Amino acid sequence: MLVVQKYGGTSVGTLERINEVAKRVAKTRRNGNDVVVVVSAMSGETNKLIEYAEYFTNNPQQREMDMLLSSGERVTSALLAIALASMGYPAVAMSGRQAGIETDLCHTKARIESIDRTKIEQKIKEGNIVVVAGFQGINRSGEVSTLGRGGSDLSAVAIAGALEADLCEIYTDVDGVYTTDPRIEPKAKKLDKISYDEMLELASLGAKVLQTRSVEMAKKLNVNLVTRSSFNDNEGTLITKEENIMEQPIVSGVALDKNQARVTLRGVSDKPGIAAEIFRKLANENINVDMIIQNVGYDGTTNLGFTVPQNEVEMTKQAMAQIKASELVEYDSEIVKVSIVGVGMKSHSGVACKAFETLAKEGINIEMISTSEIKVSMVVAQKYGELAVRALHSAYDLDA
Amino acid sequence: MLVVQKYGGTSVGTLERINEVAKRVAKTRRNGNDVVVVVSAMSGETNKLIEYAEYFTNNPQQREMDMLLSSGERVTSALLAIALASMGYPAVAMSGRQAGIETDLCHTKARIESIDRTKIEQKIKEGNIVVVAGFQGINRSGEVSTLGRGGSDLSAVAIAGALEADLCEIYTDVDGVYTTDPRIEPKAKKLDKISYDEMLELASLGAKVLQTRSVEMAKKLNVNLVTRSSFNDNEGTLITKEENIMEQPIVSGVALDKNQARVTLRGVSDKPGIAAEIFRKLANENINVDMIIQNVGYDGTTNLGFTVPQNEVEMTKQAMAQIKASELVEYDSEIVKVSIVGVGMKSHSGVACKAFETLAKEGINIEMISTSEIKVSMVVAQKYGELAVRALHSAYDLDA
Repeated sequence: MLVVQKYGGTSVGTLERINEVAKRVAKTRRNGNDVVVVVSAMSGETNKLIEYAEYFTNNPQQREMDMLLSSGERVTSALLAIALASMGYPAVAMSGRQAGIETDLCHTKARIESIDRTKIEQKIKEGNIVVVAGFQGINRSGEVSTLGRGGSDLSAVAIAGALEADLCEIYTDVDGVYTTDPRIEPKAKKLDKISYDEMLELASLGAKVLQTRSVEMAKKLNVNLVTRSSFNDNEGTLITKEENIMEQPIVSGVALDKNQARVTLRGVSDKPGIAAEIFRKLANENINVDMIIQNVGYDGTTNLGFTVPQNEVEMTKQAMAQIKASELVEYDSEIVKVSIVGVGMKSHSGVACKAFETLAKEGINIEMISTSEIKVSMVVAQKYGELAVRALHSAYDLDA
Repeated sequence: MLVVQKYGGTSVGTLERINEVAKRVAKTRRNGNDVVVVVSAMSGETNKLIEYAEYFTNNPQQREMDMLLSSGERVTSALLAIALASMGYPAVAMSGRQAGIETDLCHTKARIESIDRTKIEQKIKEGNIVVVAGFQGINRSGEVSTLGRGGSDLSAVAIAGALEADLCEIYTDVDGVYTTDPRIEPKAKKLDKISYDEMLELASLGAKVLQTRSVEMAKKLNVNLVTRSSFNDNEGTLITKEENIMEQPIVSGVALDKNQARVTLRGVSDKPGIAAEIFRKLANENINVDMIIQNVGYDGTTNLGFTVPQNEVEMTKQAMAQIKASELVEYDSEIVKVSIVGVGMKSHSGVACKAFETLAKEGINIEMISTSEIKVSMVVAQKYGELAVRALHSAYDLDA
């Protein structure tokens, strides 16, 4: 088997930890696999370098930031290759450039355009474990570029895709994907398998295991992704094609997003172009609008509701002040979004209905509803958030 | 003017220091010059990374060490370019690869083979101050290589040569080259100018301002080198062609090397091949033999003396035990080497004689003598080292 393993910042946070990672990589190799490892910077390093730059300015050149920040992963990759060789396992470190990772010309949040797989393959063929510095690549001008948040995960998934690896393991400090946040519902259980689409919904709903970008790329490149812990030997969660999951539960997980605020515009003129004007304005300000609800109106006016991240409420207020769409705009940060996610919803009716009944039984009023093919999201008062999660978790038989 | 400036580890040791360096570079730019800056890693960084590697093994792969160690200079170059831009001076950071520094295939002590000057020139033409990560290059296999001790000085001199720069300033924490060590003779004065050859002799005699390799390259490429302090505005010392120095003093400096030990072999058979056998053995062990003296012998035997670094005495003893050149080998670490250096010696007679008289007047016995065209070295008892330096410094009118 060809296995790509990615270790995040806490997994390689100290020299002792790098040594533990080396043992794990060595074991995978001993079991007869070819191994490519992708590493992040040692935890704290990237923030330290950002603080260094901020000593001089709050607005450093992006090109130079990429040169600066890419050094952290290079250090880890060299150290892990040295650790592996010291254990008797031939290993080479490769920078993003050396690994053939080519990106667009954007700095600090570049997109991977292609991977020249021959470079890594050559080193594997020579019998090496290949340790790639994550988070970085090179653009066609020969400049170092970095991939932005979650960049090392992206490196790993893209490399696994290019090499047609059998498995891409993402190691973090959590065991995998849970049916819900175990800090809210201790009965939450780890999922063995989950589909790309479900993981995408959960990631966008605040599950912090994986970034949306990486899951999207894994889906596109058909990479079997496993997220697991580098601190124990527990099996992780496999994120794969829907077809690969024999028995689909109706609901796979319950998510709670506490970071939303609700905006309500009352008495909006119910004529073409009004909604477009509002949301174009918000888009221009880079405000991330999430749920949008428009009710059927009366008397030529309608009520329009949407949610935005709490830290963008001030920007939203400024944007709303510039357009005269409504005389009455209300803001409410005391809300949360509770969601159930599951591909089984596609083939089962009554799933949403059960959610509404469950919350009603607990006396929780639902203030907004939005659905997709595999998700039902409900906005409720903040104080009911955890109760709603536990009730739904139990209602869909997710309790361990 | 095109000026290359190199700042060493203590000069860029903290963010405050990098800011001071940025001000100095900006001032050079404001005065109408094009500027290329070469930087070392922040002081302590390289040692920290070496310690990291040593956590895993005492014998790390050299290729991976180069990837590891080259990151320190990349960080400094990015930070200095950010600092300059924040002051309003367009600046770009370049790695050794980006600056076009091509080396041989040797890792951890690579030699610069060529510099593609078009890469830096392009950035200068665009109006930038170019900040190059010192100590590193790229070899024809696309691997990162480092240049070994004094590598950033070498980078600066090689770049100055390739760009035909008017001046190459090497900034350290000392003011320049002195007639002797000011800690031994407070009357020592800073030299305004010194020839390449004199500087080479002084460097090999232990003057720590510049490494021999950098001076050799400056001589070969005809680079006007200035060594000065980044902690004040004092003029430094210009190291240049002999022809550029109008008035040559007979003696430019007095050096003291405390690191030598003397080895004496008594009663060596005075026949062909014996000396060759001894020194081939020492060369095979990489022992740095310095002075070698063989006296005319009596009765078919001779006495052979030489000096080696004190920390190589044990290795020398082991090597000597393997060859039966002499029954009587003596080791003396209680000696020092005092040298006078000056290109004026070439055209003045009696220079060495004056040195011998000066030491005799102080009651100092000279135990070994070795001369070159521009240098006289004398081995004396350790306790007389400082006295000998002061006496010679005064005798050749070097006192300030």
